[in-house]
Order: sequence, then C-alpha cells, then structure tokens
Amino acid sequence: MSQTIRIQPLTTEAFAPYGDVLKCDGVPDKIINGGMCGRFHDLAIVDVEDGRAGISLFQSKLRQLPYTLELVERHPIGSQAFIPMSMEPFLVIVADADMTPHAFITAPGEGINFHKGTWHGVLTPLSGTGLFAVVDRICDTPNLEEHLYATPYVVTT
Amino acid sequence: MSQTIRIQPLTTEAFAPYGDVLKCDGVPDKIINGGMCGRFHDLAIVDVEDGRAGISLFQSKLRQLPYTLELVERHPIGSQAFIPMSMEPFLVIVADADMTPHAFITAPGEGINFHKGTWHGVLTPLSGTGLFAVVDRICDTPNLEEHLYATPYVVTT
Repeated sequence: MSQTIRIQPLTTEAFAPYGDVLKCDGVPDKIINGGMCGRFHDLAIVDVEDGRAGISLFQSKLRQLPYTLELVERHPIGSQAFIPMSMEPFLVIVADADMTPHAFITAPGEGINFHKGTWHGVLTPLSGTGLFAVVDRICDTPNLEEHLYATPYVVTT
Repeated sequence: MSQTIRIQPLTTEAFAPYGDVLKCDGVPDKIINGGMCGRFHDLAIVDVEDGRAGISLFQSKLRQLPYTLELVERHPIGSQAFIPMSMEPFLVIVADADMTPHAFITAPGEGINFHKGTWHGVLTPLSGTGLFAVVDRICDTPNLEEHLYATPYVVTT
C-alpha cells in the first residue's frame, strides 16, 4: 500500500534544509543598467568539488498529478540548480536523511538549487515547456546515488 | 547623426566570437530520468577568475525598438550568462574589439553566455516578464568596464 504526501507551497524557510529558492524577494540588492534592472544577488550556494560549475539545458517531458515517487537521487559532491525557462510552476521533491520525502510546488518565476548531497526527486515539470537551465557540476567522475523506495509514494495536492 | 545596426537572428556560428548560445540543438547529449528528460550538456564556458560562479536573478524593465545603444560594457575577469525565465526572445548586443556593435535576437527558449571580456550591451528584453537568471562571477572586487559611444547607434529590425 502506498503512502501519500501532500504538496506544499515552496518557501525559503521550508526549503532551507534542502537548498535555496531562487526568486526575486523584496527589494533588489542592487539597481543596475541606469535604473532599468534590479539584481537579486548570489542566491544559490553553488558548491562543486573535483570539477567545475557549468550550465546545461534539460528538456523534460511533463508529469501529471498524482505523481508516483519511486526513487530519489543525490549528487554527493555537487549542488544542482533547476531554473525554469518558462513561467510555469514545477514540482520539487526532496527527502530527509531518513528518506522521508517532501513535495513543494514553486510559484511562476522561481527556481531552486539543491545543496550538495540533498536527496531529491528528478525534474518534474507539470505544465509549460519542460525546458530548464541546470547549473551543476561538470566532470566525468561519478556524482550520483539513487535510492529506490520499497513502497512508492503518491504525491498529490 | 546616429548609425543604424540591424538585428540578426542569433546563431551559434555568428555568436561564437562573443560567447555561447544556450539552446537545445539537435539530439540530447544524454537521456536521463528513465527516458523522460534530455540533457544538453555543458553548453557554456563559465570562466571566472578570482572569485566563484554564482546565480543571481535580474528583473529588468522592457525595452522597445528602435533601441538606442549608448554604451557597452565588459567583465574582464568573468563570463556572464543570461538565461530567460520566460519563453520570450530578447535582444543581445555585442561589440568587437574596435567597438563595432552587432545585434542579435534570440529564439524563444534560448539563453546566451558572454565569454570573459566580451563587450556587450546591458540586458535588453523586448517582451515578456523581463526575468532572467544570471550566472556570473561573484566577488566584491571590480569586474566592470564601460565604453560610451560618442554617437549612439540605433538598433532596429
């Protein structure tokens, strides 16, 4: 029998144990370009060991709710940021050290950065184009661990 | 009297002297997530000296065409990527070593990465939300040079 986990709104506070929320929160840190642009500065802990930070694009198929969570993964020596390239919310799943999962939904215009070693679900866009920029560790040596749940979770609103 | 520069479509080849085009071009480098996602891997030369690469958000006001180009800037010790967070094209302006400017328009879903030291215009979204993720050098020491044109250029289609 599967267990159900409920989707919560993504907040900086609730997500803090797992990573960073990339959003324009409050007043910009700096106004640039002759007053035409606000810079919200240095929002993510980009932390890669034994390699370098790079930019890739992920083109994902869309997922539906209820979503069946069968596995989580983690990158033990590198953070990973998911930056949506369309103004659509997406589902973000993380897990504690004891593998208890939690599900969050972003607001439009928000990205996330998983801290190094955070257990997380794969990219799960629910609508839009499924196109994301990803900032993570670039190196040929291994940086992936997977955990398969004996009993899947059902993720729903 | 101002000079006019015409906007060209952004192509990897035309942009190569200035930076990288971040787009899903052809077949993914890797299929991940059980076949649900294509990874277009390591598309940008992220190159920062005397600091680290970080992620910021830029919330820009929109610009209109014809656009008056009065200055270009460069970051002598760091690359800078502009990743649109909405599916809208944006204007990308660069300049050669002799300061001759060139203007490109992206296709929806494309970002760019200016190589370290490339002269470029400020962020110039023409439509959409004006929200971008920016991957550039994070450090308190200086990394900005500006060049003001004696006679502005008019950028138009």
